[in-house]
Amino acid sequence: MTRWNESDATALVQRLCRRELTAEAVLSDCLERIEAREPDVRAWQHLDGEAALAQARILDQGAVRGLLHGLPIGVKDLFDTFDMPTTYGSPIYAGHQPPSDAASVAFCREQGAVVVGKTVTTEFATFTPGKTRNPHRLTHTPGGSSSGSAAAVADHMVPLAFASQTAASVIRPAAFCGIVGYKPSFGRINRSGVKALSDSLDTIGFLARSVEDVALFAAAAGGDRGLLDLDTFNAPRIALCRTHEWPHAGDDTRRAMVLAGERLGQAGVPVRDLQLPLLFSELLRTQKEIMAHELARSLADERLRHAQALSRGLAALLRQGQAISAEQHWGNIQLAYSARAKLSSVFGDVDAMLVPSAIGEAPATLDETGDPVFGRVWTLLGLPCVHLPFTVGATGMPVGLQVVGRYGEDRATLGIARRLLRLLRD
Amino acid sequence: MTRWNESDATALVQRLCRRELTAEAVLSDCLERIEAREPDVRAWQHLDGEAALAQARILDQGAVRGLLHGLPIGVKDLFDTFDMPTTYGSPIYAGHQPPSDAASVAFCREQGAVVVGKTVTTEFATFTPGKTRNPHRLTHTPGGSSSGSAAAVADHMVPLAFASQTAASVIRPAAFCGIVGYKPSFGRINRSGVKALSDSLDTIGFLARSVEDVALFAAAAGGDRGLLDLDTFNAPRIALCRTHEWPHAGDDTRRAMVLAGERLGQAGVPVRDLQLPLLFSELLRTQKEIMAHELARSLADERLRHAQALSRGLAALLRQGQAISAEQHWGNIQLAYSARAKLSSVFGDVDAMLVPSAIGEAPATLDETGDPVFGRVWTLLGLPCVHLPFTVGATGMPVGLQVVGRYGEDRATLGIARRLLRLLRD
Repeated sequence: MTRWNESDATALVQRLCRRELTAEAVLSDCLERIEAREPDVRAWQHLDGEAALAQARILDQGAVRGLLHGLPIGVKDLFDTFDMPTTYGSPIYAGHQPPSDAASVAFCREQGAVVVGKTVTTEFATFTPGKTRNPHRLTHTPGGSSSGSAAAVADHMVPLAFASQTAASVIRPAAFCGIVGYKPSFGRINRSGVKALSDSLDTIGFLARSVEDVALFAAAAGGDRGLLDLDTFNAPRIALCRTHEWPHAGDDTRRAMVLAGERLGQAGVPVRDLQLPLLFSELLRTQKEIMAHELARSLADERLRHAQALSRGLAALLRQGQAISAEQHWGNIQLAYSARAKLSSVFGDVDAMLVPSAIGEAPATLDETGDPVFGRVWTLLGLPCVHLPFTVGATGMPVGLQVVGRYGEDRATLGIARRLLRLLRD
Repeated sequence: MTRWNESDATALVQRLCRRELTAEAVLSDCLERIEAREPDVRAWQHLDGEAALAQARILDQGAVRGLLHGLPIGVKDLFDTFDMPTTYGSPIYAGHQPPSDAASVAFCREQGAVVVGKTVTTEFATFTPGKTRNPHRLTHTPGGSSSGSAAAVADHMVPLAFASQTAASVIRPAAFCGIVGYKPSFGRINRSGVKALSDSLDTIGFLARSVEDVALFAAAAGGDRGLLDLDTFNAPRIALCRTHEWPHAGDDTRRAMVLAGERLGQAGVPVRDLQLPLLFSELLRTQKEIMAHELARSLADERLRHAQALSRGLAALLRQGQAISAEQHWGNIQLAYSARAKLSSVFGDVDAMLVPSAIGEAPATLDETGDPVFGRVWTLLGLPCVHLPFTVGATGMPVGLQVVGRYGEDRATLGIARRLLRLLRD
């Protein structure tokens, strides 16, 4: 018997729209999987199976709604939902009921998605973990901050789940859980109704088990049907880029880079090496300072009225941010602009780079979510990134690389990512 | 007897910090003024004099808190407040109580400000008016969207009030009410907790009765003490710029431009004319399209679940926005970036431009808030703007011009604005 929870969204929605399959049947399999696995995986902050079933039945009885008709989705608990509490991963907001949906969630509901529940986020999407475990090995972190979304998708609880990235919170959990993660170009997906942490960095992202699925999800959430056609990129010019953060890469990531070069070479895809300008070596520090400074401002109310309810790690991060003056911050923003202005010449005639997604396999701990070092610079630069899971590390846990495309070229980046993932997995 | 509600914030706070004056005394005069005038002016969406008095007494008994110690402020009802309902100018949010303060409000409270109440905003800070009237003439609009904040400051109800600008919502109400309005460079003031309308445009701003006061207010709200020193700009290079929107200017604004040239010339300030590149003639349309498109996304939940509670004007604007595709929108964003990249050469060796703030005097109507045509382009470009009230129009209502400075040069822009306002008023 087919387990619908194991199918990709793109395959499911075709059957759902043709009425060969009911939303209720898909959701029932997802809920069964959640029931079986949630005690171990702990992906969900809030779950309302009955409400979701009621919605699914309504969809089954009415007209086909749109791109996500009848698909169950998970929503990171950083996104407001009008019908479910939203905690932002903090006890300060225990039981908080927003009055409205985040815009991206509203877009998905309009397109027929069924919100199953809210997935666990780290505290305000920063570094203090929630309760979620890596479904591949329960003693390992799923990564963060989109911990619950990545675990739920990897564990076949839902085909699609919302994520967001300020440092590496889409790409790292995708890497640790062995799924596809897509962080769009900065500014492409509306952020209204998502808790603001760092205005210059916060980016809504998408987790799924195939590149087609993240593209479908983003097309719905961003009202951008252009992303549905990934077919026109047949001879991409690819570079491997070890980045200025390469000394942080562990053996598994180093092997993945070598493997990618070999497999693409065997497939006849010419691959060159690309070096980033020296200026870009400043961007890791710059991203950390911008994030800390903006966090300390965005969370001013929480810091002033609820200091005792913040984790020690977050309190320390906010103190770091407060120590950065407005003038220093402005200098950092200018440096980021300078680097962005150089991107076109950095890419040259390259369409996309393959770069590390994480240091290596998910760390064997639940006390932290792993190092975001390989995500920070790309978030600061605002470039579209897609994590491709294609190999395993020394202990058998998932490892992959991310494709980084040109600014605003999200469709091309996704098209290239789809092609590369096929070649890398062969 | 001194009426403290008529004093500037900068003068008041010096006395308050020296304990020559109590916060209670200042607030009492403000509340008395509000009580007398509110039935006519209608500046307030929510007012809690008793709670404000309790806060003032606590401040009088404790240590000096900071830059705004004991100053009463008004908060535009687009900004979340943990202790007062926040409607965003829409019946959809009647009675809505946010769980936390907007970051900028929290910063001001930390610096000792007393929030008197929430000021009237137009519907979601767009174009459907609230109940507020122009305090100079009750049959005239105060402008929008920061209608209540501008009216309250102009009418001596409070010395300082928060505003925000997506098209011209700081500068236009400042112009119509004859006060100083400051729209900072895009990105300088944290927007967390302010209802998001257009992510590429939304900018928090400040209304007061002097340039020193808006600078003090912004220094507190933005945690940027650099703005407290406006003294180092002695020989600014100024240009008059009639902009591509000049055909919209009415006689009063045309006279103000001529008058400014004459008065600055008489004061020995060399003033030249500056023409904007042809590319900039596209920016008015570009700003309108970006705003409509982003509004339609930001307000997705309201549009989908509360369509009947939107005004006809806003519903039409959202439909315009929905008709703009993601690709068209991205093209508009790129055009804005191109124009921003040219700004440095546009300014050349000019430190600031004087440009129109509005078509002319406040229109004699309460059915609309006036045309934002002279604000839109500067919001899109992200440049710091300060409205200077220095003359009156044909019927005796306030008229002025705005100073537009270089991107990120807010301190210089405010310093120049202060100097120019003195010269223009002579």
